[in-house]
Amino acid sequence: MKFHQYIHDLPTYEVGKPLELVMREYGIQPDRIIKLGSNENPLGVSPSAKQVLMESASLASIYPDDSYHELKNSLSDLYGIQPSNIIIGSGSDQIIEFCVHAICDNTTKILMAKTTFAMYEIYAKHFGAKVIRTKDFLHNLDSMLSLYKKHKPSMIFLCTPNNPLGEALPKKEVMDFITQIDKECCIVLDCAYMEYCRYKNEEYAIYPKDIINFPNVIYLGTFSKIYGLGGMRIGYGIAHEKTISMLHKLRPPFNITTLSLKAATASLKDKDFLEQTLANNFTEMQRYISFAKQKSLQILESYANFITFLLHNKLNSTKIGILLLQEGIVVRNLESYGLNALRITIGTPEQNQIVLEKLSTIIEK
Amino acid sequence: MKFHQYIHDLPTYEVGKPLELVMREYGIQPDRIIKLGSNENPLGVSPSAKQVLMESASLASIYPDDSYHELKNSLSDLYGIQPSNIIIGSGSDQIIEFCVHAICDNTTKILMAKTTFAMYEIYAKHFGAKVIRTKDFLHNLDSMLSLYKKHKPSMIFLCTPNNPLGEALPKKEVMDFITQIDKECCIVLDCAYMEYCRYKNEEYAIYPKDIINFPNVIYLGTFSKIYGLGGMRIGYGIAHEKTISMLHKLRPPFNITTLSLKAATASLKDKDFLEQTLANNFTEMQRYISFAKQKSLQILESYANFITFLLHNKLNSTKIGILLLQEGIVVRNLESYGLNALRITIGTPEQNQIVLEKLSTIIEK
Repeated sequence: MKFHQYIHDLPTYEVGKPLELVMREYGIQPDRIIKLGSNENPLGVSPSAKQVLMESASLASIYPDDSYHELKNSLSDLYGIQPSNIIIGSGSDQIIEFCVHAICDNTTKILMAKTTFAMYEIYAKHFGAKVIRTKDFLHNLDSMLSLYKKHKPSMIFLCTPNNPLGEALPKKEVMDFITQIDKECCIVLDCAYMEYCRYKNEEYAIYPKDIINFPNVIYLGTFSKIYGLGGMRIGYGIAHEKTISMLHKLRPPFNITTLSLKAATASLKDKDFLEQTLANNFTEMQRYISFAKQKSLQILESYANFITFLLHNKLNSTKIGILLLQEGIVVRNLESYGLNALRITIGTPEQNQIVLEKLSTIIEK
Repeated sequence: MKFHQYIHDLPTYEVGKPLELVMREYGIQPDRIIKLGSNENPLGVSPSAKQVLMESASLASIYPDDSYHELKNSLSDLYGIQPSNIIIGSGSDQIIEFCVHAICDNTTKILMAKTTFAMYEIYAKHFGAKVIRTKDFLHNLDSMLSLYKKHKPSMIFLCTPNNPLGEALPKKEVMDFITQIDKECCIVLDCAYMEYCRYKNEEYAIYPKDIINFPNVIYLGTFSKIYGLGGMRIGYGIAHEKTISMLHKLRPPFNITTLSLKAATASLKDKDFLEQTLANNFTEMQRYISFAKQKSLQILESYANFITFLLHNKLNSTKIGILLLQEGIVVRNLESYGLNALRITIGTPEQNQIVLEKLSTIIEK
């Protein structure tokens, strides 16, 4: 059986052990695990979404309404756009896949920041496209622009706020950048963490409406972060209706579960939960900032729901990651991004208290 | 922005109205709709799965365990295979996509029966592959074999039992066919309805174990039909571990919701529910068979959870479909398959009673 060469070249999937089994080996019970490695909402599922999920269990046998009518209407109201500007994906990941699939192949290039969301490169490789990265550590639109002019990529990914580093781009700079890119090149604005950024600083706030008249720009949002539905795999893309119409050609029917649609619609309306999430995030982030100052550790300014520690030579992110794991604490070691750094999701006050205590003990050893 | 030509050539997605809105226009309340158009389990969600879903609502914020450890172990036990022989997809549809993506492009051909599951062709077109179909109405392996020899396709789809016609292939014929196909060609055995077929006739029963030593054959199963989880988007592919390893390279992380995994694992173990589903299906199918005989209507022998009526010239499937819809009954009009035929999911006794009464009135008008 002949698989495409670029499929052969993809890394082999290593089946990991479930987290709960790993923890059990360390003698840690499931209810004691502190999971701050995946930027999930530490307050959990919104009460409204949880109630809807429980009430909807008997709908699990029924295929979803494939028009996604209710959710698209709710998103339209939220953002002041039309349902025809929206495509719903199994996480915003799936919209990334649709974009790469629709535009790229092994003759095209994709431009992105040096250190950014890992799935951009993975999807690029799924279609054989070549990845070009800036040399700068953080997003740098000047470098992007000069690489754009040099390589003429078919697609550019901007992630603001950026995962896994947390920096964001001022709206004015993003809009200037967009106008300097040819309409032939697709710009994907990944705004998975934008709700946190808007709360922190209005100058960095980008809304779908800002980009909707550019035929080549796609705004991505997700229900996995502030909306507390990481486990339900649902996100969205917003763009000019002609662009959305093209991406829809690649959307398989029923790409979202019936329960995810119900939960997402409910979570959009739970304003109290969103407020609590934001307030907790930035109040608690201050504790990490104070801790870093006190211990002379370098952190990056974060516009998202996590904080990234850049470690100095005496501290090793992999070793610290394992030591924390043995205490039942999961954080993200950024070694796979080529960094001696740890990304920690801002947790609840109780979780952060424990994390900072353990981290303090580990680094002072 | 330059989209691939084969994306342009795909049909534009027409946003339909949600079923409940259509029905409301006909004056029919949501709880009175009889939904027998999508081969969902008419008994609904299994009680075990429903309980697990309700208990798991607060896990909706947590990404799934991406190893799918628990579900793979349960499937391994059921089929006497290894977890390394299994890949989990967002419906078995997603496994079809992985296969086409890994093997096909605009230089390759895919062979399938004249009238079979619509998604095979849709995914073929997503990757620009050419579709070749047999001329025979039902699956005919002799025709398949001669077309295989003539066109040398990279992939063959067999759907047994076949959606939307209901016929199945004897195991012996399938195994003979497989041995006559070169190992360079991938054979996808879509067994979404196989549980019904095994119950009806052991000679038509195919198990994953039967094909697992052929490196080029992939068995597809789903939780959408007998397991009553159509709304949770979960299915699986089973094959030689080398083949599964290649397909895994294309699986995005977290392609299944946390709740779907829990529900699928629970539904596998609810043997009473499966027995009830099978008994209801074949007892109730008899009523459709008797009805057809009584009204001199042609039906196809079905090995699945639906029955297909081939209508004669005086009856029009589109008209009948609309008249049933106005009564709150949804069935599948097969006009889009080029047939004057209706596919009706076998419902509960109460549902079938109403459907047969209404159908009787309509055809006698």
